[in-house]
Amino acid sequence: MSRPVIELRSDTFTKPTAGMREAMMSAEVGDDMVGEDPTVNRLEARVADLLGMEAAVFACSGTQSNQMGIWAHCQPGDELIIDQSGHIANYEAGAPAVLSGVSVRRLPGRMGLLDLDQLEGQIRGGNQHLAPTRLLCLENSTNLGGGQTYPLEQIARVSEWAHGNGLKVHVDGARLFNACISRGYEAADVAKHVDSISICFSKGLGCPMGSILVGSEPLIQRARRARKLFGGALRQAGIVAAAAEYALDHHVDRLADDHANARAFAEAIADIPGIVIDVEAVPTNLVFFDLQREFGTAADLSAALKEQRVNINPTGAQQLRACTHLDVDREGVLRAAEAIRECLAAGL
Amino acid sequence: MSRPVIELRSDTFTKPTAGMREAMMSAEVGDDMVGEDPTVNRLEARVADLLGMEAAVFACSGTQSNQMGIWAHCQPGDELIIDQSGHIANYEAGAPAVLSGVSVRRLPGRMGLLDLDQLEGQIRGGNQHLAPTRLLCLENSTNLGGGQTYPLEQIARVSEWAHGNGLKVHVDGARLFNACISRGYEAADVAKHVDSISICFSKGLGCPMGSILVGSEPLIQRARRARKLFGGALRQAGIVAAAAEYALDHHVDRLADDHANARAFAEAIADIPGIVIDVEAVPTNLVFFDLQREFGTAADLSAALKEQRVNINPTGAQQLRACTHLDVDREGVLRAAEAIRECLAAGL
Amino acid sequence: MSRPVIELRSDTFTKPTAGMREAMMSAEVGDDMVGEDPTVNRLEARVADLLGMEAAVFACSGTQSNQMGIWAHCQPGDELIIDQSGHIANYEAGAPAVLSGVSVRRLPGRMGLLDLDQLEGQIRGGNQHLAPTRLLCLENSTNLGGGQTYPLEQIARVSEWAHGNGLKVHVDGARLFNACISRGYEAADVAKHVDSISICFSKGLGCPMGSILVGSEPLIQRARRARKLFGGALRQAGIVAAAAEYALDHHVDRLADDHANARAFAEAIADIPGIVIDVEAVPTNLVFFDLQREFGTAADLSAALKEQRVNINPTGAQQLRACTHLDVDREGVLRAAEAIRECLAAGL
Amino acid sequence: MSRPVIELRSDTFTKPTAGMREAMMSAEVGDDMVGEDPTVNRLEARVADLLGMEAAVFACSGTQSNQMGIWAHCQPGDELIIDQSGHIANYEAGAPAVLSGVSVRRLPGRMGLLDLDQLEGQIRGGNQHLAPTRLLCLENSTNLGGGQTYPLEQIARVSEWAHGNGLKVHVDGARLFNACISRGYEAADVAKHVDSISICFSKGLGCPMGSILVGSEPLIQRARRARKLFGGALRQAGIVAAAAEYALDHHVDRLADDHANARAFAEAIADIPGIVIDVEAVPTNLVFFDLQREFGTAADLSAALKEQRVNINPTGAQQLRACTHLDVDREGVLRAAEAIRECLAAGL
Ligand SMILES: [Ca+2]
Ligand SMILES: [Ca+2]
Ligand SMILES: [Ca+2]
Ligand SMILES: [Ca+2]
Ligand SMILES: [Ca+2]
Ligand SMILES: [Ca+2]
Repeated sequence: MSRPVIELRSDTFTKPTAGMREAMMSAEVGDDMVGEDPTVNRLEARVADLLGMEAAVFACSGTQSNQMGIWAHCQPGDELIIDQSGHIANYEAGAPAVLSGVSVRRLPGRMGLLDLDQLEGQIRGGNQHLAPTRLLCLENSTNLGGGQTYPLEQIARVSEWAHGNGLKVHVDGARLFNACISRGYEAADVAKHVDSISICFSKGLGCPMGSILVGSEPLIQRARRARKLFGGALRQAGIVAAAAEYALDHHVDRLADDHANARAFAEAIADIPGIVIDVEAVPTNLVFFDLQREFGTAADLSAALKEQRVNINPTGAQQLRACTHLDVDREGVLRAAEAIRECLAAGL
Repeated sequence: MSRPVIELRSDTFTKPTAGMREAMMSAEVGDDMVGEDPTVNRLEARVADLLGMEAAVFACSGTQSNQMGIWAHCQPGDELIIDQSGHIANYEAGAPAVLSGVSVRRLPGRMGLLDLDQLEGQIRGGNQHLAPTRLLCLENSTNLGGGQTYPLEQIARVSEWAHGNGLKVHVDGARLFNACISRGYEAADVAKHVDSISICFSKGLGCPMGSILVGSEPLIQRARRARKLFGGALRQAGIVAAAAEYALDHHVDRLADDHANARAFAEAIADIPGIVIDVEAVPTNLVFFDLQREFGTAADLSAALKEQRVNINPTGAQQLRACTHLDVDREGVLRAAEAIRECLAAGL
Repeated sequence: MSRPVIELRSDTFTKPTAGMREAMMSAEVGDDMVGEDPTVNRLEARVADLLGMEAAVFACSGTQSNQMGIWAHCQPGDELIIDQSGHIANYEAGAPAVLSGVSVRRLPGRMGLLDLDQLEGQIRGGNQHLAPTRLLCLENSTNLGGGQTYPLEQIARVSEWAHGNGLKVHVDGARLFNACISRGYEAADVAKHVDSISICFSKGLGCPMGSILVGSEPLIQRARRARKLFGGALRQAGIVAAAAEYALDHHVDRLADDHANARAFAEAIADIPGIVIDVEAVPTNLVFFDLQREFGTAADLSAALKEQRVNINPTGAQQLRACTHLDVDREGVLRAAEAIRECLAAGL
Repeated sequence: MSRPVIELRSDTFTKPTAGMREAMMSAEVGDDMVGEDPTVNRLEARVADLLGMEAAVFACSGTQSNQMGIWAHCQPGDELIIDQSGHIANYEAGAPAVLSGVSVRRLPGRMGLLDLDQLEGQIRGGNQHLAPTRLLCLENSTNLGGGQTYPLEQIARVSEWAHGNGLKVHVDGARLFNACISRGYEAADVAKHVDSISICFSKGLGCPMGSILVGSEPLIQRARRARKLFGGALRQAGIVAAAAEYALDHHVDRLADDHANARAFAEAIADIPGIVIDVEAVPTNLVFFDLQREFGTAADLSAALKEQRVNINPTGAQQLRACTHLDVDREGVLRAAEAIRECLAAGL
């Protein structure tokens, strides 16, 4: 009998647990298109309250909640600025242009994080040749930036700068709770500085689908309209909202385990010949590491690991990303590290 | 203890049954964004097969699958033609313009159905002033048209005309199985004449959410890209796809009951003083009827019925629509009819 | 030597006169992109003043100024309402959807003119399924409607209705001065009731190109941004603006001649066997008339006339449109009428 | 009497000469919307022939012809890649997103020029998260890049790479003839490697307005449709096309004078205390130079020069750009240099 796969490609691969399935099965539902789904209503109110913001709207996916935010904040022809590695800028299929007519300008931050030295002087407008800068997007924690997190002071600082310059601030908080757990701050501590936050339920929180956008009442009303336009307004959405409620109850604090497992994995591979990694640069659940060219390519290593039933994606010619989550425990990450050692020892 | 509400506002109000919830709870899932959800894959293959088409793609809502079809069939600046009462033309929030840059031209059909006499001479193009006509959208069964259904010959005839004029044909089959059951044809009989069909699972089929778009392989590939752009690409979508599978197994044939209940309701209200209805014009599960002006407005009657725990929406100043579905039985529709009689007897 | 062509296809065919060319040749110019073209600035100020509105912006074409107005008034997802024959709805290539994400809903007016009986009850909104109605577009004079003009009271009435319902009102005044001359009112009399007016210089006013949009200062600022987006912001535009100035000086009052010629043409063809026309329905410079089926098709007649060096376009299977303008005099229209008589007498 | 202004802000400020005005005044015209303007037709045929391409379409502005190209090459959701300083990426108001739903990804080239080392590995696609890369845009000569020009071999090399990877190549040739004159190649030498080229007539060529897009027949047909959508289709456009014809006859070879004047200006300011400039980096008509911080800001210097009737724009906190063209002669640029010397000597 074959060993189970160790799935480190992404925390999106998390599957609903028995408890979460039970919560979904017993969810009270109604037609959310007319505001009658009690579970959705409760979830939206809860998350708005948790973040100390006025309103929230459930969405199908993180891409959808981000794009609803962009649609609601911007007008066609506007520009948003974002770190060059940002998910919105790179992994949402070019949606800002298609759905909102919004241009994306990438700035070179540090590991996905933006600070004043990258932002100052970057606002455009007042000249009809330019797309006016309307929105600053921050990612917390970062994805391609390596799971880095914003210190609260930095969020306060860049948001103050943005607001002082007439911009709105949206946080792509697909992994917001990873940042909260890692930094020890509350989601509301972040929210009080910014204009909207999206949170994804289908990643580390373990849900099958779902996301939520939180902000002011008028913003969320506009976002609801965007959701309908995008085909994201659902009927008995309480079924999936119940998973999100369950996740908020049971899967937030445990993100600390994912972080510890990521660090353990990083440490376990750090001394493998051919592997280059900065163990200190693993604050949350994402572990980026490089393979030295003479040992083969990232794609080679990924393929070899797959035969060992370890799934890790290449993210560059020589770079790979491992992502921990609730379906992988300490033993799993250590076995994955061991598989890397064996693959490289055997040669790719 | 109060009587349960008789919910006749829409078949979208259907809630998942215990059996459907069980199917969802036990669904095998994977990350559908990378094509690894076995339940979604099975559902898509099954529906493509059922319709005799090459491919299918699961979507979050009927609006989404329709808009994915429009995006995939058209280019910006193109025009689609549709009956003036069409859902795509009136109830999808203006999405064709926003998502696809497509103009909608409404034609005056008969109870939502289009035939050659309305279509001939309506194709535009060959002159840069005109938005070229690219797509014909048919609704089967019709919604605002009163649940009317297309005879197969009519679908064949208008589709042949469309194809002969370089148009593609999309069927908004939100209630396709209602038409099939009512007319006695198979979904594949319709599909063989057209280029794409959307089917909605959250209406008469009883699912909490979900829809599917079916067509050729290249079309569905383009539609998948649209789905990602709209934020409709999900992760462990098998949870909700399992409900759709359950519905196909258990909720298709029983649509005949909804039709019989709709007819019974129509007959029961036909002789109520103040009510005007053509009982013969109720082929499926939608019952439109008028209230004579001297008895009050449709809104008045709707409000009075609500106090009797009967939910029926006004759809015009003097018009109401009742919609039967699996959460309302024969006793329910008869009680609703009785409530109308009582309300009108008492005066609004 | 062949006779000159009598060009009745459209008033867009007007060519600049010697005097207009002289005005263009001697125009003072500057870079309008930075607001330094004195001729453009003078024209914009003049037309704003003429209409009693705050501001104006020069545009390349009537389509462009209409679309700038739509972009400036609406947000993506909004809907505009317009008579079913409106130029914006039918002859601007589907631009409202492409450029602004705006849906067009056509209403059945009378000869292109809308009044309260067509408008009341037509406003949508307050339900996320609907594209909210934001803009009422009136055409004055009408094009496909047959050159009909709005009485001032009707403009006042429908605009009051629109404003009372939260709509803005845009007048497609491509031929506004034709309406003014015919009705005896001033452009400002129309303007005071509405939110924006576009005027086209390249039609009856005789310019080679150019249009202008007039409205409030904030609206025109937004429209300027749209113009830049559409690639319509020019450099030394004073060259063409000078033609517009010349037209305002010399070609407005003479539109009365075009109207008289149109009426003379209509009267001259009214008794030709095979021609059906309502002479009373020719208030301005557009003459629509029908050819009885037994005499041939409109395309046949158009082709036969072309051999007689008379250009008249078919606008339907049995319908043609003749348009008078400053390059056709009384003798010309009478000769065109005579050509029709001869063609029909000879048989098509 | 005051001295005339020396206008070095941009070559867009060129005003039509007496000869060009004469050409416009005597232009033969027709209605270009129906293809009957002989001057436009002749110009389009001439430029297509000059570049050895199938077809050309006249446009109102360089922004418009670039955006028509993007619309014609791409579909919504696609991505174009371009040097980070590119005009399309920065100075066209965000139009790619608004008009075409196209995302712009900026790459860091050398002075606005891209080569294989910046391009390889940059193509995206094959994963629904990514906006597929469809178009490579090159600017020749560069604008913000400092008037740099592509060697033919580099155009051949990057175009071969692009085509080999399924991309199309568009050249923003707003100043293509500056590059041709400077490098000694023909426009057709560039054109044979690429899929479309836009050329602007209102810059160094001295016209009041106008641009042209050149490419294959199907591409130009699509671009014509875009032009109509953008409101850029004109009527008697021969008036302005005649200026373009005149420019091709009289203003191409003389661009060499502008280049010599730019170099003379650069040399004349090179030894002014406070000015930093690389004289070797001035191949065409654009002179970028820096002001040392201790002498004041670029805005200060620009303001001081304006009082001396010398117009030079700041392009950064310490950077300015002077642009030579046919309205400034050698004496003018030397006087401008002298004014800079005097302003800095006097202190800002
Ligand atoms: Ca906590
Ligand atoms: Ca998941
Ligand atoms: Ca349902
Ligand atoms: Ca007057
Ligand atoms: Ca004209
Ligand atoms: Ca110029």
